[in-house]
Amino acid sequence: MAGRVDSPLVSERVLVQQLQARPDGPVSVSGWVETVRDQKKVQFVILRDETGAVQLVNPATRPAEDGSEQDAAALALTDLISNLSTGTFLTATGQLKHDERVKLGGVEIKIGDLDIAAAALPETPIAADSGLDKRMDWRFLDLRQRRNNLIFRVQTTLEHAMRTYWIERDYIEIHSPKLMASASESAAELFEVPYFEDKTAYLAQSPQFFKQMAQSAGFGKIFEIGDVFRADPSFTSRHATEFTSIDAEISWIDSHEDVAAMQEELLQFAFQAVKDKHGAEIAELFGVEVEVPSVPFPRIPLAEAREIVAARGYDIPRTDGDLDPEGERQISAHVREQHGHQFVFITDYHPEIRAFYHMRDEETGLTKSYDLLFNGVEITTGAQREHRVDVLIEQAKEKGLEPEHLDFYLDFFRYGAPPHGGFGMGLARVLMLLLGESSIREVTYLFRGPTRLAP
Amino acid sequence: MAGRVDSPLVSERVLVQQLQARPDGPVSVSGWVETVRDQKKVQFVILRDETGAVQLVNPATRPAEDGSEQDAAALALTDLISNLSTGTFLTATGQLKHDERVKLGGVEIKIGDLDIAAAALPETPIAADSGLDKRMDWRFLDLRQRRNNLIFRVQTTLEHAMRTYWIERDYIEIHSPKLMASASESAAELFEVPYFEDKTAYLAQSPQFFKQMAQSAGFGKIFEIGDVFRADPSFTSRHATEFTSIDAEISWIDSHEDVAAMQEELLQFAFQAVKDKHGAEIAELFGVEVEVPSVPFPRIPLAEAREIVAARGYDIPRTDGDLDPEGERQISAHVREQHGHQFVFITDYHPEIRAFYHMRDEETGLTKSYDLLFNGVEITTGAQREHRVDVLIEQAKEKGLEPEHLDFYLDFFRYGAPPHGGFGMGLARVLMLLLGESSIREVTYLFRGPTRLAP
Repeated sequence: MAGRVDSPLVSERVLVQQLQARPDGPVSVSGWVETVRDQKKVQFVILRDETGAVQLVNPATRPAEDGSEQDAAALALTDLISNLSTGTFLTATGQLKHDERVKLGGVEIKIGDLDIAAAALPETPIAADSGLDKRMDWRFLDLRQRRNNLIFRVQTTLEHAMRTYWIERDYIEIHSPKLMASASESAAELFEVPYFEDKTAYLAQSPQFFKQMAQSAGFGKIFEIGDVFRADPSFTSRHATEFTSIDAEISWIDSHEDVAAMQEELLQFAFQAVKDKHGAEIAELFGVEVEVPSVPFPRIPLAEAREIVAARGYDIPRTDGDLDPEGERQISAHVREQHGHQFVFITDYHPEIRAFYHMRDEETGLTKSYDLLFNGVEITTGAQREHRVDVLIEQAKEKGLEPEHLDFYLDFFRYGAPPHGGFGMGLARVLMLLLGESSIREVTYLFRGPTRLAP
Repeated sequence: MAGRVDSPLVSERVLVQQLQARPDGPVSVSGWVETVRDQKKVQFVILRDETGAVQLVNPATRPAEDGSEQDAAALALTDLISNLSTGTFLTATGQLKHDERVKLGGVEIKIGDLDIAAAALPETPIAADSGLDKRMDWRFLDLRQRRNNLIFRVQTTLEHAMRTYWIERDYIEIHSPKLMASASESAAELFEVPYFEDKTAYLAQSPQFFKQMAQSAGFGKIFEIGDVFRADPSFTSRHATEFTSIDAEISWIDSHEDVAAMQEELLQFAFQAVKDKHGAEIAELFGVEVEVPSVPFPRIPLAEAREIVAARGYDIPRTDGDLDPEGERQISAHVREQHGHQFVFITDYHPEIRAFYHMRDEETGLTKSYDLLFNGVEITTGAQREHRVDVLIEQAKEKGLEPEHLDFYLDFFRYGAPPHGGFGMGLARVLMLLLGESSIREVTYLFRGPTRLAP
């Protein structure tokens, strides 16, 4: 089946990346003006499209100083180019010429005609050195940068590889509702939505309950990539009030180790796809060599991780026994030094610092769960879930939850359920760490935070 | 790379669909109890997993009438089976035996041991003849039906095929935010969400504005599959307050015809994938032969469609010039009869019945847009968008919209924009019509409507 790009239906537009392979001759390209160099005798326009940039050239025709007559069309074209504002979208028709002296791809186009689709206002509101917040105000302009465009190509490849991994293994894709009738784990994290009949709906902070429902429904193995919402005001570089969550849940596991084994294989597969398709460009634009992780990833029990961090000279101030962000960086640095690995599973968390539905090991009393750290930042919590309803109710009560508020969820386990487990992973965190960026805001299409709701 | 299913990490579980190809001998299967036939001398259990159902058999050992001693383990196993409730999840270990007399797949397993993961309550709240609303109350049980499981396998294949089509053609996948600062088209359709700093956020009723933003950002071609929300109370079989929307948007088109050409090719590709993978099972369980549509789909201008419907004897009561649901069924029936096609593009809508951002044809004054009908129901609106900001502002004013409320959107066109267009398509509607179902509620994982917010 032919791609639309090559179809005459879409127009005879040629993509910039196709120019080098084309013979000299007539050609038409479409994109936006990145720069104009308006010299007295010759004009250059750098035109960018979604595949690259090309130099357009026009021998300037200026009004003659002696007042002698000039070609009107040539004068008009020169004038048009002189007045082109950066960002203007246009179609240039002209003659393609290969010339190895042209640094930009070894080709240039001598302009025959310019057809302006929409002229940009002359003053661009952001510049190369604008701060992050300013750039977010004008995100659609910020995204025109080649580097930012690449982020979303990487995202596309990463997600498609993960879905392909799952689908080749007979997972079912679900779309769970984001409007829920009741708070699930922590009401503090939930946005409220006035609903019909004076009811209140809540925006899901994860698909947790509904992906577990799929296990009771006998779906076996499922995944979901979708939006989730967090109403607690966090202002760190790793938090957002809305983000894309990558979730999977599988039945008939023996422990959380089966979940971890799937997740590490999934990430290996997806990183390989990113490296194959974008490795060179990521190295060029982000200065990062994509590493395809070896499996199994290192695993360290939480208590041991805390000892290692302490031995490195960092005292974790938290008193609940968990790692803090600096602790996560320290243990990741240790793993990097000792195992040459970017990933590490931290295991054996105490029930006090885990959700009520995490299954507990009968011998140790610790949860059958893990956190996955990637380059020093937590990207995932995974666990085997408690599927025995009596135990589940006890664990909910222990956390101060009232079982009657969880009844719709507890029902999932009253009519039979398989042993199961899964993980949730933040897409933006993975992208941020993969590309060596400093904030998820840089890798989110349109970031949402406590002080950011637009554009 | 080995699938997790075959990995010793996940356990030695064998899927039911793998049984036929295995030799006789020891085997372990996991699933839930579909039926128990507890006869005096022999017991049968039908166990279902996500891949099929298998018969388990146990020669019953009952307490001897004469009081003589019996094998205690055999007595216990018989007793356990007698008390098995439907829906109980368990692992059965035993001896696989091929026997062509067994209708269910030609194999059965003589039970050695049953390991119960979670017993179901004895009374199942829904039955085969329960009504839709009752089944939705217990959706996780309803989804255990083979037919319902197939719906979501079809959904998985359909979506993956569409994404694959796009990704092979260099589309970028985006995730646009669902929390928005301002109403877009129609405030009546929007859920309000109290946000930080006493602001009000709105839940997006479509990714329309943000997928257009990607065009100004120079992304070229994008798609998004994600949740959208509609606050207008509709109670039809085709409406929901939350649903999965399939959206695409492409740059440098000549007209809406380029969008239509992409969409028909996309649907052809995706339906072919569904037919290849699930055609036989859909025919068996839904009585439907999946038709892979030929391209191009028929196209009929709206005015002509109304004439055809009138000639068929149906007077459309709407006075705005659009089709109504019965009119849609009539024109689809006509296309089916005349062209043997399940799809039809209705074109040339008057601006009065279209969104303000639809581009208008300079000659006719009609919009460069279409609706796509599939088996009598609208599944899509597609259009070329107006990218010239002055024209766009005029068209917004004409609709009574205040441009200052749309400023963030209008900005997308003030700094340059390419000609572009796209479509939005409801996933559940496509599935409903593909499978010949009567309501999107049947094909939605968890339906949300004005009176339905749980489970």
